[in-house]
Amino acid sequence: MSVTRPLGFKAAGTTAGIKPSGKSDLCLILREGPDAPGTGSAACFTQNQILGAPVIVGRRQRERTLRGEIGPARAVLINAGNSNAATGDRGIHDAEACMAAVAAAVNCSPTAVYPSSTGVIGRLLPVEKILAKIPALTATLARGDAADHAAAAAIMTTDLVPKSAHAQADIAGHRVQIGAIAKGSGMIAPRLDCAAPTPAKGTMLAFITTDAAIDSPDLQAALNDAASLSFDRISVDNHPSCSDTVIALSSAMAPPIPGAGRGGQPMAPLRKGTPDHQAFTALLRSVCESLAEQIVVDGEGATRTFRVEVLGAASRDHAERIAREVVNSPLVKCAIHGRDPNWGRIVTAAGNAGVPLDPARMSLSIGPVEVYKAGVPIPAALADPRLSQAMAAKRVDCALRVGDGPASAWMIGCDLTAGYVSINADYTT
Amino acid sequence: MSVTRPLGFKAAGTTAGIKPSGKSDLCLILREGPDAPGTGSAACFTQNQILGAPVIVGRRQRERTLRGEIGPARAVLINAGNSNAATGDRGIHDAEACMAAVAAAVNCSPTAVYPSSTGVIGRLLPVEKILAKIPALTATLARGDAADHAAAAAIMTTDLVPKSAHAQADIAGHRVQIGAIAKGSGMIAPRLDCAAPTPAKGTMLAFITTDAAIDSPDLQAALNDAASLSFDRISVDNHPSCSDTVIALSSAMAPPIPGAGRGGQPMAPLRKGTPDHQAFTALLRSVCESLAEQIVVDGEGATRTFRVEVLGAASRDHAERIAREVVNSPLVKCAIHGRDPNWGRIVTAAGNAGVPLDPARMSLSIGPVEVYKAGVPIPAALADPRLSQAMAAKRVDCALRVGDGPASAWMIGCDLTAGYVSINADYTT
Repeated sequence: MSVTRPLGFKAAGTTAGIKPSGKSDLCLILREGPDAPGTGSAACFTQNQILGAPVIVGRRQRERTLRGEIGPARAVLINAGNSNAATGDRGIHDAEACMAAVAAAVNCSPTAVYPSSTGVIGRLLPVEKILAKIPALTATLARGDAADHAAAAAIMTTDLVPKSAHAQADIAGHRVQIGAIAKGSGMIAPRLDCAAPTPAKGTMLAFITTDAAIDSPDLQAALNDAASLSFDRISVDNHPSCSDTVIALSSAMAPPIPGAGRGGQPMAPLRKGTPDHQAFTALLRSVCESLAEQIVVDGEGATRTFRVEVLGAASRDHAERIAREVVNSPLVKCAIHGRDPNWGRIVTAAGNAGVPLDPARMSLSIGPVEVYKAGVPIPAALADPRLSQAMAAKRVDCALRVGDGPASAWMIGCDLTAGYVSINADYTT
Repeated sequence: MSVTRPLGFKAAGTTAGIKPSGKSDLCLILREGPDAPGTGSAACFTQNQILGAPVIVGRRQRERTLRGEIGPARAVLINAGNSNAATGDRGIHDAEACMAAVAAAVNCSPTAVYPSSTGVIGRLLPVEKILAKIPALTATLARGDAADHAAAAAIMTTDLVPKSAHAQADIAGHRVQIGAIAKGSGMIAPRLDCAAPTPAKGTMLAFITTDAAIDSPDLQAALNDAASLSFDRISVDNHPSCSDTVIALSSAMAPPIPGAGRGGQPMAPLRKGTPDHQAFTALLRSVCESLAEQIVVDGEGATRTFRVEVLGAASRDHAERIAREVVNSPLVKCAIHGRDPNWGRIVTAAGNAGVPLDPARMSLSIGPVEVYKAGVPIPAALADPRLSQAMAAKRVDCALRVGDGPASAWMIGCDLTAGYVSINADYTT
């Protein structure tokens, strides 16, 4: 129950032979029907300086859509097995050839198609294999659980499980649904251009559909807010990808709530700054949070996750930098794996964030147990059975207070295991 | 052949019972004789915001020595097994109690003793165990290989091998020697306050003795230069410690070169800005480079190392940031372990350094083989047997050109292995 659950969308997945494994590797998501008030598209991309060709093309299209030069996107073509990154001008031409083929097959403008690619870096995209499958892909576009599953499976790389989310709410007198699929397991530490003040560090992809009526700029505003508090809050390996991409499409086909007294009126487009837009943004954020947590739970080699909340910081940027430094420390990640309450690693990782800290004003809790307070250890904590329970949980929750400031931020990471090493020491060969 | 090889120094190591393993864990290095022209001390410390108590005390003493308020340090007391970090005011008092005991035993001022501690974080220092061993330690102070070995062994934590270096040169008509010991295997990514423009990220300790005549400020200048191009150029796990410390002591006892015509004159203190000071700095740097490379070769779980040189950057800071991002990427580290020429990970790691990059001006060589040029892959490279040879070398050498700028920088890292995980998932328990 994901991308084709909101009204107005179809999807399909197939096997083009890009993955050496022979698993499905090509996906198409399509909004049906013509552009109309409240049909929109929005996107967020990696801030890595080395960009996949689809990101270069996609950023350009997003800007043109937001400026009103072109209409919203209607289709997303995604391949797994090859990222079409570090491939120069040839990569751009290859992406554009695929977009043109989809546009011809579904009868839209090539600029209404977003390309997206994930997989090995620095290899030319096997365009002929992809073009050969476009007719079969468009012929199998469908709605329903089977189509949703096919789409989610075709975008996986080292993922062990497909990832999807769905939410619905009554907004502005209409029953609004949001559906989404995502992939990502390694090279995960998105720093998307939605909001991150500092440069990007995985390939995670997420594709979101909604039947809300919301035009591109208002959808972009909602996506920026939702992505910055979800995808940008996870890290598997502190290596942002050249290809991280989140794309959202709206169909404006949400039906009126029966008996709401608006007599079957089409939904009016949601406008930024209104309570209805806030309600939509909150719903979108819940979908993005679910996908983000699914990604880190399925992080390469991960057996458990941990969440670090930094409290009392001077600014959200400070809080985020500290939380990020903690979840990215290999020593902290190994301690989580070993269920070892070696909290000195957490505190010293925080000390490397480039943020001024005063140990006398710091305290750290793991689960319900305070282990460090006002700069000194609480020795009795190490004997508290609740501490070993908290360290053994599927998700270890830590709260680090750094002062009396107004700002907080959280990050979710995963443990570092021999499995991670084995997956990544033998990936291309 | 290390710290007691230069004239004027003695050392000793013993077992105080701080390490649960029962291995030796307490070391003393002492300069003999009174303060005189050309006896000096210098130090560099971590920039982590959470500081070990010995670092807090040591920074204060360094500043006072440089301002001439107190004389140079004469002794360094080092313990392994407990870092005396995150221990608040009590930690400071504990460090001072140890310094006072050494001062009384060797008849110097407490402020002429540097404390240094490495090991588990957030546990109170077992002061009584240390104080009980000071008499035995001072009674066994000696010169020669046995003393050097005892000192180097007593400062080890997860190190598999002791680390030492020695160099000599004729400078200013005198035969100058430099000897040093170091430790470090995990929590290694020093960003010392010698020069690093950005905040610190292991515990590495290094203790250097020289019989050159060089006063504290001139020794500090030489150490800043040498440490910034050696210890600050290695990373095992991108987690700078709260305790990273480099301390250098000079005895001014270097003997005249026989027949050099200065008739047995004592060596005149070396002054910053002179060719003789430059010659000394170069000798010191060679010792620091040797120790730094020994540390990364013995990195926790490491089986091989890799060196990344970034060329053509706009500034040394840019070059260094890019090189640091590459050596710290878990994905690059796993590729090195797997001998996998997956160069897309190197290029995209560079893209996360927060430095503007233009792929069209970038190229990458691994060993003698160019794999990426002007933003596009060189497909033939992957079949070149020299590439697999380079990837299988004990040290993999990569050169990444990012443009035509004047600046370059290098970093040395190590592979990420299942051994690293196992060492760190079960460290305190």
